Amino acid sequence: MRPKNDTLLRALLRQPTEYTPVWLMRQAGRYLPEYRATRARAGSFLALAKSPALATEVTLQPLERYPLDAAILFSDILTVPDAMGLGLFFAEGEGPRFERPLRTEADVARLSVPDMASALGYVMDAVREIRRALANRVPLIGFSGSPFTLACYMVEGGGSDDFRLIKTMLYRRPDLLHRILAVNSAAVADYLNAQIEAGAQAVMIFDTWGGALADGAYQAFSLAYIRDVLSRVKRQHEGERIPTIVFTKGGGLWLEQIADSGCDAIGLDWTVNLGAARARIGDRCALQGNLDPMVLFADDAGIRREVEHALTSFGRPSSGSGHVFNLGHGISQHTPPEAVMTLVEAVHDISRRLRA
Amino acid sequence: MRPKNDTLLRALLRQPTEYTPVWLMRQAGRYLPEYRATRARAGSFLALAKSPALATEVTLQPLERYPLDAAILFSDILTVPDAMGLGLFFAEGEGPRFERPLRTEADVARLSVPDMASALGYVMDAVREIRRALANRVPLIGFSGSPFTLACYMVEGGGSDDFRLIKTMLYRRPDLLHRILAVNSAAVADYLNAQIEAGAQAVMIFDTWGGALADGAYQAFSLAYIRDVLSRVKRQHEGERIPTIVFTKGGGLWLEQIADSGCDAIGLDWTVNLGAARARIGDRCALQGNLDPMVLFADDAGIRREVEHALTSFGRPSSGSGHVFNLGHGISQHTPPEAVMTLVEAVHDISRRLRA
Repeated sequence: MRPKNDTLLRALLRQPTEYTPVWLMRQAGRYLPEYRATRARAGSFLALAKSPALATEVTLQPLERYPLDAAILFSDILTVPDAMGLGLFFAEGEGPRFERPLRTEADVARLSVPDMASALGYVMDAVREIRRALANRVPLIGFSGSPFTLACYMVEGGGSDDFRLIKTMLYRRPDLLHRILAVNSAAVADYLNAQIEAGAQAVMIFDTWGGALADGAYQAFSLAYIRDVLSRVKRQHEGERIPTIVFTKGGGLWLEQIADSGCDAIGLDWTVNLGAARARIGDRCALQGNLDPMVLFADDAGIRREVEHALTSFGRPSSGSGHVFNLGHGISQHTPPEAVMTLVEAVHDISRRLRA
Repeated sequence: MRPKNDTLLRALLRQPTEYTPVWLMRQAGRYLPEYRATRARAGSFLALAKSPALATEVTLQPLERYPLDAAILFSDILTVPDAMGLGLFFAEGEGPRFERPLRTEADVARLSVPDMASALGYVMDAVREIRRALANRVPLIGFSGSPFTLACYMVEGGGSDDFRLIKTMLYRRPDLLHRILAVNSAAVADYLNAQIEAGAQAVMIFDTWGGALADGAYQAFSLAYIRDVLSRVKRQHEGERIPTIVFTKGGGLWLEQIADSGCDAIGLDWTVNLGAARARIGDRCALQGNLDPMVLFADDAGIRREVEHALTSFGRPSSGSGHVFNLGHGISQHTPPEAVMTLVEAVHDISRRLRA
């Protein structure tokens, strides 16, 4: 069933809209005091992410405050490798880590696609509970990390500055990395399809680290597997199109190739000029982005000026070329919550005016 | 006086060469045991960088091992703001920091261009001593951080993940940031000119953090000041052309604009396809780069394969289109020194073969 506000879905499918829809990557997050309160009650980030009730609570928090045009499932990007048995944990004050990273040929050989219902049922429960709580106000976006981005954490064992371990594997034993990516690709496709069946109305693939790859390696080790995922994802569910969004951070040089991957929309970071991207992509895909999250530290006039700059840079949406407003990366935890209201209202007001 | 091996200078000026010259960013560095020994003798990184004798010693170390086509001054990127009185220090196991970062309007108002001879004489002494020790074998490259990259450290007080402080200044008080950049720009031009007068035969501007800026902000806050520096730098000294190189890491989307800045050559990171970059830039500038430093963790056959891939991607150098081989970023401290020999020999051998 179509949500009452389906502006996001129409923009992603390059259908006409009355204004430019907006949501924010990591909109349910630490910059909101109510999120920090729920997080404190949960005891840990993982307890929060693994409780469907609490995940539902935080997913809806930004929608209570701001007239956003979409909800996005609150979850961790590493649920899939955790379900593969790698042992996700968060050391105090650090990013995510795996107890059992993939380092040897035997580690890689053992890897297999997890069963969605048993190992990731809590995510689908959250999707269903969020859909109930949303009561069809706005669409719910499901998501997954890309096969390569997941592999980065799986091989490095956590975050990395230089991706030395996974790139050593890439240049020395590409066969091992291709095997990991093939498993990840099948798992990500299953994961997104399970989210769609549970109620996700659009899905986004976060390729956070694809932009760390060299030209050539990106196409072979990240984009090829994103294309594979897209070829397996259900594009239609219960009579509705399920739009897909691909976001390779730092991928601005490869937009034409991303557009050929089969996605409906491309996420852009703030280094990309929206008008130039539109000229390069034409009507092949919608574009999503791309304000620097640090613009939210400007004063209200500064935020409005940068929003107007982005909207006019994209230009007037003709039929067949959609724009979804977003940041070019997740919102900073230090963002003043009032700044988000200024941003969301500016996107709605200015984009209506530009259409008039 | 022209160095005996002037291949680098010719390639930077898009004159014919017999093979593709190669040097490596951070080639004098921690991956070399002899560097670590000198560094230990110096007592600290700053003591090493501030001693002309020791800076000369480490600058020449990679040239003793490998048939590199250039030396690059060993120095720190933050000598200029240190000379401005910001108090550079290195906390144990951390990156560079400033005791007195620029936070208030008064901090910014006090900033001024330092006197090169008194505050940075040790750098010019090192340039002269390196030139004597090189005995005209290969050219010596001088360098500076870009005005914006220096400002990042000066405002943040050290490295940063999100550049929140400088971007808050950029979006809230652009006047303050422009004032810092104007001072930096004059200081960087003086600094490069003093290096040229002391003997630097080419100069490179490292815009390490320009790629963190949004499209639009990059042009206004980084590239505009690089252009200003280039307009003030001596392009001729003692009858020889002094080629200039500009390297904005993550700047692949802006190559045409960088090419219009007045530089002779553009540094490229590994996300850029060399052939595509050459097609975009034509004969306006030479190109320098761009192997992923992690390729040096491959086996010898893998290194040679990636070198050949880069060289053939650039294509045969016609007259008027130069290529200088380099990494797309500084060499990793974990690199096996033997891998560098494989790389340098592969660049020379394969590029001679491709010209044959």
